[in-house]
Amino acid sequence: MKKKLAVLLSGRGSNFEAIARAVREGKIDAEIAVVISNRPDARGLERAREMGIPSLCVPSRGVTREEYDEKLIEELRRHNPDLICLAGFMRLLSPAFIAAFRGRILNIHPSLLPAFPGLDAQRQAFDHGVRFTGCTVHFVDEGLDSGPIVMQAAVPVRDDDTVETLAERILEAEHATYPRAIALVLSGAYRIEGRRVVHRK
Amino acid sequence: MKKKLAVLLSGRGSNFEAIARAVREGKIDAEIAVVISNRPDARGLERAREMGIPSLCVPSRGVTREEYDEKLIEELRRHNPDLICLAGFMRLLSPAFIAAFRGRILNIHPSLLPAFPGLDAQRQAFDHGVRFTGCTVHFVDEGLDSGPIVMQAAVPVRDDDTVETLAERILEAEHATYPRAIALVLSGAYRIEGRRVVHRK
Repeated sequence: MKKKLAVLLSGRGSNFEAIARAVREGKIDAEIAVVISNRPDARGLERAREMGIPSLCVPSRGVTREEYDEKLIEELRRHNPDLICLAGFMRLLSPAFIAAFRGRILNIHPSLLPAFPGLDAQRQAFDHGVRFTGCTVHFVDEGLDSGPIVMQAAVPVRDDDTVETLAERILEAEHATYPRAIALVLSGAYRIEGRRVVHRK
Repeated sequence: MKKKLAVLLSGRGSNFEAIARAVREGKIDAEIAVVISNRPDARGLERAREMGIPSLCVPSRGVTREEYDEKLIEELRRHNPDLICLAGFMRLLSPAFIAAFRGRILNIHPSLLPAFPGLDAQRQAFDHGVRFTGCTVHFVDEGLDSGPIVMQAAVPVRDDDTVETLAERILEAEHATYPRAIALVLSGAYRIEGRRVVHRK
């Protein structure tokens, strides 16, 4: 039976589109079972509808994090995903959520973690003056951008870069890296040693 | 007049050798005016002597950091270096030392800073499970491996790496990167904006 992905997003969901493309092209051997947004106006929801992918909004306004995550767990369980992919989902997940899907939640972050966790990572890196930054796909644990690293891509900072041109190049790297990391995790061709994710041939 | 470098080291000084090679090959337009070690038995001192480069030991045993740095400042001033290059110099420098040569001290660190400052950076990176690490040449300020970054090189972590094979590959990157960074700083073809070192054409 085809493996199932769930994608959580809050905005335009360009990483969701990159994942959907990889699924369509057979680079990820799975189907996207559901796309969930916490914002009703997320452009990613609209794109999912256009692509005929089941999608829904679980609105986050006016509910506590615990209540929200309970609803989210309920919706996700209905679709029974093998892997949950955060794609610009702008909410911290509760320990209860992490526990419900432990080892089955991936996130992509626009820096070479552990450098520059948190918000606005591209600007953090730019202002710090690093010559390399990039993106990181990692398992989600209870910490902030702290789970075991599945895959990274390095992106050089150019002398004529602005935060915007740098962020654009990092985003391209994200679109190339996230689908490959998802395919790897779905294939099971890795083992976790301490906090290292070692890829198997 | 030729610009003058001073190199400080504590051990084998393989980065010192890479710098000496670059000087010999004309890739760094300067001379090494002096090599100073805090340890009398540092292999780097011996290599300097073999190469006919002035070298001396300012022993660090049994003196306070302030006393030590005072002696070091005195010895360095005698040679009037344009740039002081730390090459495996295993001592923290005092604020007085930094102030005496502000903007003229470089260090190389075996990670992509700001990730993994401090000791045993290669192992820190390996154990953290990053897929990219590397090396960083930076100006030295009062913090730990925290000054403005001049140059970095990214080094991928391979699935069959051990800490040792990884450290070996990082060291090769150091030998390629440090001379280029020194040549850049000596050329003056950069400006500092905030904590960014922007290279000029």
